[in-house]
Amino acid sequence: MSVPRVAILVIGSEILSGDTEETNARFMARHLAAVGASLRRVVIVPDDLAEIARFTAELAAEHDVVFTCGGIGPTHDDVTYEGIARAFGLPLVLHPEILTLIEAWKGGPLDPAHQRLARVPEGAALYRGDGQFPVVSVRNVYVLPGVPRLLQRKFPELLCLVRGEPVLTRQFRTEETELSLAEALTAVQAAHPEVEIGSYPSTPASGAWSVRLVLRSRCAGLLDQACLALVAAIPSVRELT
Amino acid sequence: MSVPRVAILVIGSEILSGDTEETNARFMARHLAAVGASLRRVVIVPDDLAEIARFTAELAAEHDVVFTCGGIGPTHDDVTYEGIARAFGLPLVLHPEILTLIEAWKGGPLDPAHQRLARVPEGAALYRGDGQFPVVSVRNVYVLPGVPRLLQRKFPELLCLVRGEPVLTRQFRTEETELSLAEALTAVQAAHPEVEIGSYPSTPASGAWSVRLVLRSRCAGLLDQACLALVAAIPSVRELT
Repeated sequence: MSVPRVAILVIGSEILSGDTEETNARFMARHLAAVGASLRRVVIVPDDLAEIARFTAELAAEHDVVFTCGGIGPTHDDVTYEGIARAFGLPLVLHPEILTLIEAWKGGPLDPAHQRLARVPEGAALYRGDGQFPVVSVRNVYVLPGVPRLLQRKFPELLCLVRGEPVLTRQFRTEETELSLAEALTAVQAAHPEVEIGSYPSTPASGAWSVRLVLRSRCAGLLDQACLALVAAIPSVRELT
Repeated sequence: MSVPRVAILVIGSEILSGDTEETNARFMARHLAAVGASLRRVVIVPDDLAEIARFTAELAAEHDVVFTCGGIGPTHDDVTYEGIARAFGLPLVLHPEILTLIEAWKGGPLDPAHQRLARVPEGAALYRGDGQFPVVSVRNVYVLPGVPRLLQRKFPELLCLVRGEPVLTRQFRTEETELSLAEALTAVQAAHPEVEIGSYPSTPASGAWSVRLVLRSRCAGLLDQACLALVAAIPSVRELT
């Protein structure tokens, strides 16, 4: 199986205004990495119909699976379903199964706000999972809520869609600067193109610089070879466990 | 002055892999909101030359100012300058002023890793600010470091580029559900189109639902009118101070 290419579309003016901290994309990124999916892009847009439509279409065309989060409640600023419908040129229709679920949950006749929750792009599928509430999908786009507690309850159930070979990681640290490491690192990377080597400097509270080196590969043997080469080229590195 | 449209391009495979928490975009979002700039989009891409080039070009064409962060160190995975050069069809050249700064800082002859820090797209400008280190800009793209401590030191100096009328905000909370609020909210929003009304449900640890309503406008008078209408339409709201 090839590695599924995944994108995330975060919908939320409250995030772009700095008002709310974005936590959903990071939660999804960690879970995606754990099952070996390749998260290729995250885009954050406002609650704007045209923007949602544009980036849904673009991300869906360029990735195997897209997860959206945010903008699916009953209020006027929740326009994700409209945006996805426009992205694919589909009408919004009342989905009979969602309607039945909401009626059963509410136990009475539905007002327009409840009906809005059941208006989804034509042809939408329901992913029931554990049955608490369904996730709506339209083609390769899976629509998640923006409330972190709800997203965190639901998202792990969807990981079966994107499971690949897990990415193996080994990490090293050194107190040298990136400047003194750069030539050796370039040589190790060039000799081990199948292993991705990331170099992340940081300045801890003490003020001293340190560099974290992260080696990633789906193949344990190639990863081990690259790590041996790294330790030989840069003796100051210590492996982090 | 019209409101400057701003975008952020975050460059970092370590963020897409869930390995590192993204904090730079949120830091910038809060500062941009405080000076009235309109952050319209955030895109997170890997340390990939083609992706950086594509989104630099797209964001620069559609916004007044673009801030990038990440990917400007001396190691092989730092390809932001190359990506920006490709976005604008410019060659990479050694920038004499950056070279002089690095020589003065290092106090000796430069090896290839140091020289790499001074290879920037042709025509790049330097924004010196407080003089600690310069920010490189190419057309309307400003290139910031990914290390949060360095970004946080430098970014506030750049806010003069994007200052607009500040956005005023008033916030309310209610323990009603979004479903019961939706109709009234839709009516208030329709009657006050110049004020943006956001509705953000949350489930606190207690498990009870509450909804935060955020009203935003650049005009104090219009904002006050919409708040009066909101309180009249939904008597259960309490203003947060």
